[in-house]
Amino acid sequence: MKIDLLDTLREKNPIAFNISNFVTVQDVANGINALGASPIMSEEQNEAEAMVKMANSITINLGAFTEQQLNQIETVMTFANQYHKPIVVDPVAVGAVQYRLERCNELLAQKQVAVIRGNIGEVAALAGVDWNAKGIDAGEGSSDPVETAKKLANKYHCVVVASGKTDIITNGEAVIRVFNESDLFKLYVGSGDMLSSTIGCFVGVEEDYFEAAQTAVVVFDVAGEVVAKSMSKPLAGSFGPQLIDELHLIDVKTVEKYANFE
Amino acid sequence: MKIDLLDTLREKNPIAFNISNFVTVQDVANGINALGASPIMSEEQNEAEAMVKMANSITINLGAFTEQQLNQIETVMTFANQYHKPIVVDPVAVGAVQYRLERCNELLAQKQVAVIRGNIGEVAALAGVDWNAKGIDAGEGSSDPVETAKKLANKYHCVVVASGKTDIITNGEAVIRVFNESDLFKLYVGSGDMLSSTIGCFVGVEEDYFEAAQTAVVVFDVAGEVVAKSMSKPLAGSFGPQLIDELHLIDVKTVEKYANFE
Amino acid sequence: MKIDLLDTLREKNPIAFNISNFVTVQDVANGINALGASPIMSEEQNEAEAMVKMANSITINLGAFTEQQLNQIETVMTFANQYHKPIVVDPVAVGAVQYRLERCNELLAQKQVAVIRGNIGEVAALAGVDWNAKGIDAGEGSSDPVETAKKLANKYHCVVVASGKTDIITNGEAVIRVFNESDLFKLYVGSGDMLSSTIGCFVGVEEDYFEAAQTAVVVFDVAGEVVAKSMSKPLAGSFGPQLIDELHLIDVKTVEKYANFE
Repeated sequence: MKIDLLDTLREKNPIAFNISNFVTVQDVANGINALGASPIMSEEQNEAEAMVKMANSITINLGAFTEQQLNQIETVMTFANQYHKPIVVDPVAVGAVQYRLERCNELLAQKQVAVIRGNIGEVAALAGVDWNAKGIDAGEGSSDPVETAKKLANKYHCVVVASGKTDIITNGEAVIRVFNESDLFKLYVGSGDMLSSTIGCFVGVEEDYFEAAQTAVVVFDVAGEVVAKSMSKPLAGSFGPQLIDELHLIDVKTVEKYANFE
Repeated sequence: MKIDLLDTLREKNPIAFNISNFVTVQDVANGINALGASPIMSEEQNEAEAMVKMANSITINLGAFTEQQLNQIETVMTFANQYHKPIVVDPVAVGAVQYRLERCNELLAQKQVAVIRGNIGEVAALAGVDWNAKGIDAGEGSSDPVETAKKLANKYHCVVVASGKTDIITNGEAVIRVFNESDLFKLYVGSGDMLSSTIGCFVGVEEDYFEAAQTAVVVFDVAGEVVAKSMSKPLAGSFGPQLIDELHLIDVKTVEKYANFE
Repeated sequence: MKIDLLDTLREKNPIAFNISNFVTVQDVANGINALGASPIMSEEQNEAEAMVKMANSITINLGAFTEQQLNQIETVMTFANQYHKPIVVDPVAVGAVQYRLERCNELLAQKQVAVIRGNIGEVAALAGVDWNAKGIDAGEGSSDPVETAKKLANKYHCVVVASGKTDIITNGEAVIRVFNESDLFKLYVGSGDMLSSTIGCFVGVEEDYFEAAQTAVVVFDVAGEVVAKSMSKPLAGSFGPQLIDELHLIDVKTVEKYANFE
């Protein structure tokens, strides 16, 4: 695993264009800014091409879109494919809401994305595997998570990150499992969105998206683990600011020391 | 007062659908997630029915809506009434802006809601009682707050929570006053919105909305008081994260110890 | 410099109407509320006139607008000019996106504003001076920042605040430079938006906008410096909440003690 991509990210300071979820946008912007990227957000079609051209990557969070925003999302994805800028997609709640699942599958069928990052309920829904998602939460299912993630990666020819207690990263063949975890991630609603946007930062500086996704997941998970270990009790509200603190402070050496994957 | 509804909430982990105020949505989502509910947000009409069906309750914050969002709000309220899901309404600034007052009264006249939660200026405006509200703040008036809240409860056949230095909860006949308070609530713009959404969580697990609203107010107020007491000076910015910390940490015993109501 | 305008602000508690950037709106609302103003936000045209009439000032953040929001922004600016309410404009990323630059120049050509606050890349773009902006960041250029800011002030007959390592405030003739700084401002995406809205608060209580802008900048910069000095390492995520803490705690004496300008 190329953990020193973290240094590359900070040297290159990539512009990370985010079509964001309005629920978590502030923390996401601060998180990736603290990490070392330069976030920019937009909801306007007329600047879509300019945004894509200046960006090193595009992260599209489908956490709370309207039909109108969907038009802008399609436009941005079209330009991203045209200008060969990698796209990360976060398919929030597609496991729970049929409308979201349909729109998301339509987008993924038409455009080429670099990485899909969701919880296992969302990954299963897109892969067409039975799973009982619960709202924005993963819920429970009986299928094998690794096979489910691989199925989705092969369906859309992209890297898939299925995050949860263990994070699974696959390009459809090879699989990396990351075991760094903290219960605090579930207590903080920005965790998933911030992880997706962190992957967006790394695919902006590394063309091997499978490598980029691995580094992003390990950096993010270790940062969260470091924060959680420093707390004597679970501080659900303080976790967010302290995670952003750590995304700035963490270095390659710390990530290498704590990284737990196979 | 059924303070152990807090345990029920955490056991049932209700899905709390929030049509939120974009100003405070991130803290509201984190607050109710920390408390023990599962928040989900949406602004799209096409998924309104699916959202209502999966949700245990709906909280509608009228803090910053547009005409377009109003259509979605009406659709959501219609489905909520159809599927018998309780609605909590937060009528932000209806005391200061005639347009908001009119739209809000129209909604309340057409749909059945479980609880209205506002400051006394907002409650007075909806009740048709003279009051000088100031922007998003309560302002000052000479009418009796308890009678004003009862008038509104009877007008729309629902529970009314008029929050302020003393919080008043009424079903139009019975009245509970909660005295737990902190000046920090006024320094934190998310306080009112988060209280409304907390009430939303409790009406999702308790069919007696008057009981649910009481528990919600006491849990929320005690949590804020505990945080405020732990500070040696008023930390307006740190209060938000620490309130979210406490909404997760607080238990029935602590609420019972500090609860101050009659 | 009239540093005691801070006391005036807290006595008068002005209503600060903000058309905000959805990325940072929560922190901006909390920041100006903590400082001593009463924030109110709206995106709806139908309440534009009521909002402007009740407000003491209007801050318009062009950080992430859509064509639709632009209609509302124009309406608000028209009413603000009609009712003689001062407008502060924050032209986010006009140095990087041609579409934003054009829309912003159109607005500024048609309406009279009190203050423009941007980084030097944004100020240069509006002034028509060559500069290499980088996304939302200032980037680098070879022109003289003071002359660039003066040029813009004379172009639109308003006060210009060009913020950066040194903050420049000019009415087109006189120039004040503020040297209070902290690297943490760059690590926190809300810094610029919050500074613009802080200026909005002060122009709501002081008709001499050049004086109001100076006080706003010095109060804000000193608050940030006080927070930064209290940290043993740069906490990118904790800086936001602590800056809001300090905006409430800071007093005229502290600002006078640390203010560093000429």
